[in-house]
Amino acid sequence: MPDAISPKRIAILGSTGSVGTQALDVVREQSAHFTVELLTAGRNAELLIAQAKEFNPNAVVIGAESRYAEVRDALFPLGVKVFAGAEAIAQAVQMESIDTVLTAMMGYAGLRPTLAAIDAGKAIALANKETLVVAGELVTKRAQAKAVNIYPVDSEHSAIFQCLAGEWENPIEKIVLTASGGPFRGKSKAELALVTKAQALKHPNWDMGAKITIDSASLMNKGLEAIEAKWLFNLRPEQIDIVVHPQSIIHSLVQFRDGSMKAQLGLPDMKLPIQYALAYPQRLPNAWPRFDFTKVPAFTFEQPDREAFPNLGLALAAMERGGNAPCVLNAANEIAVELFLQERIGFLEMSELISDRLAKATFVPSPTLEDLEASDAETRRAAHEAMNSPQWRS
Amino acid sequence: MPDAISPKRIAILGSTGSVGTQALDVVREQSAHFTVELLTAGRNAELLIAQAKEFNPNAVVIGAESRYAEVRDALFPLGVKVFAGAEAIAQAVQMESIDTVLTAMMGYAGLRPTLAAIDAGKAIALANKETLVVAGELVTKRAQAKAVNIYPVDSEHSAIFQCLAGEWENPIEKIVLTASGGPFRGKSKAELALVTKAQALKHPNWDMGAKITIDSASLMNKGLEAIEAKWLFNLRPEQIDIVVHPQSIIHSLVQFRDGSMKAQLGLPDMKLPIQYALAYPQRLPNAWPRFDFTKVPAFTFEQPDREAFPNLGLALAAMERGGNAPCVLNAANEIAVELFLQERIGFLEMSELISDRLAKATFVPSPTLEDLEASDAETRRAAHEAMNSPQWRS
Repeated sequence: MPDAISPKRIAILGSTGSVGTQALDVVREQSAHFTVELLTAGRNAELLIAQAKEFNPNAVVIGAESRYAEVRDALFPLGVKVFAGAEAIAQAVQMESIDTVLTAMMGYAGLRPTLAAIDAGKAIALANKETLVVAGELVTKRAQAKAVNIYPVDSEHSAIFQCLAGEWENPIEKIVLTASGGPFRGKSKAELALVTKAQALKHPNWDMGAKITIDSASLMNKGLEAIEAKWLFNLRPEQIDIVVHPQSIIHSLVQFRDGSMKAQLGLPDMKLPIQYALAYPQRLPNAWPRFDFTKVPAFTFEQPDREAFPNLGLALAAMERGGNAPCVLNAANEIAVELFLQERIGFLEMSELISDRLAKATFVPSPTLEDLEASDAETRRAAHEAMNSPQWRS
Repeated sequence: MPDAISPKRIAILGSTGSVGTQALDVVREQSAHFTVELLTAGRNAELLIAQAKEFNPNAVVIGAESRYAEVRDALFPLGVKVFAGAEAIAQAVQMESIDTVLTAMMGYAGLRPTLAAIDAGKAIALANKETLVVAGELVTKRAQAKAVNIYPVDSEHSAIFQCLAGEWENPIEKIVLTASGGPFRGKSKAELALVTKAQALKHPNWDMGAKITIDSASLMNKGLEAIEAKWLFNLRPEQIDIVVHPQSIIHSLVQFRDGSMKAQLGLPDMKLPIQYALAYPQRLPNAWPRFDFTKVPAFTFEQPDREAFPNLGLALAAMERGGNAPCVLNAANEIAVELFLQERIGFLEMSELISDRLAKATFVPSPTLEDLEASDAETRRAAHEAMNSPQWRS
């Protein structure tokens, strides 16, 4: 562990994605506090090379083995170790020299390396919500056994985590996750059937990757966050409320058992939760724009429209059911989003595909990691197969 | 000091006032956590007697010596010690058996007993804002020297204090005090010249005593709170913002140096900050009504109208000036409110009277307690005298 003066040594998994690049912005601004030990990327070799040249990590891993030679040739002469493949990521996070692992990979792929980092006793800055959605019980139990802290990076969970500072002895009565409502707030089901990929990719407040932007538009994102919150904060499903707050200034709230609520607020900017997760419990000074009440003279609130956005109800039902249901939900949703981004299915057909998978998958009440891998693989296979036969469409 | 199981032994100064009676509601509901050692009242002997019969304190003090015999005859047979007069209050708070002193007396009169309680090493639950307005430097220095904690009871300061839990190592960038705007929000200066006492006493959100309700209507209350906040949280004047939030759900906010803001929210109910100050750091469960977003679908924000409400600017200028200026402000305001409640001066004339006193009082840069007592007495005398001569009216 570093002392108060030596910088924290960071691994960033998924450094070329939206959260990854913003994390490197934070590292660049706070260079006295952080150094980069490891960067990993899926297939964006060009950006990974450029990042490594700037931040000089001990090692990098490129997921796509076909890009290995390119990365090695660029970085080996600079003394950066270069590896390739998913297995190498899980090994590299265990390097002795790493203090904190920021898991900013997309989707289910974040699970294995997160577990490896926990096993190696690294602090986790968790930006990959699928890890807890798919394997919340397994991951939180293992983190507890290893006395590893998981610091949330999602803005909503960071908000709740910030509100819990100094309150760990005070039981939570409930939390309220705020939702922007996405680009389609107020649209009817009939209108949603016709929305396009381009419309779905335009988020009103947050600048994020494509997958999470589609999840925001369908409210699946809020359902996944509810499942994530359940595990992060050890809550029962009925302790989790969701309210639509289109201005995205209140990032979420906690209500304690005395009825008092605490909220965390600010301009929507992922750099804040990233920096907080990396520097916790310290708040590092910065010069980012501040929220100004005169510019946002009203915060509004409304209930999410569960009828028009069935994904939210599907996710909450999977949370209630437990077992491998959230894993099936997540895998079916990853495929559905992929197919929607390929313009092979419509916006509402995503929900139909997910619902179909949840109804048909074999339920496993207490899944092992192997059970989850099997559920994930089977769901993906079945969802792809369903695409080629019309029966799943309602 | 009591251990975790034995109840905290409380003294309530001003037990028959608005905060005092609500504090006793809290004690009644949380009887496993609190016992009443001392109750003091100004002149409401009947209620003091009834309270003592219910809560069985070790001692009571009635401020008005003319009511002493009545209180003694009612309570002496029950084994309750009975004293009278301001000096007895300052002595009684020092009783060995008291853990925490809730100072809920009205106005300047709260200063002496608060200092006495600090000298005796008692924790302070501060509901008397005038104490810090008049003698903030003196009181906070003495509390520091005695290692005495001051827990704010004002809802705004309690909100900030709640937001600072777990954040004591993180410097405050600024705070934002929220203001309901009072019953006259949106009125012009011309309209304010004509408002009546009955109108001024109708606060839209909070149920409070007459003095503070008038101060809320004139925005003096927010100015006094800014001065109080300066001392409680060790802030420079420019770190204190004020925003009008008519729904009174966000009770105030803190912004840290990373730009993140935390707010405390809830239904406007003084029992929450009272209970928090008495039970800190514990949050005791209760069955009070909870805030519900579906009932308040919008929080709005606007800038205070300093032109129509000159008291706010007078208070902030006195804070900037320092020395005995806040003491003069407070004394002139107490007389002005008294005269307004007697219907001897109009609503805006309160500001004129205060402004006149601030302009004419002798400035003392670093006042001792004796200097403050002299400033207070002289300001009251001069304000009364001015009433009988027309020159102070602008």
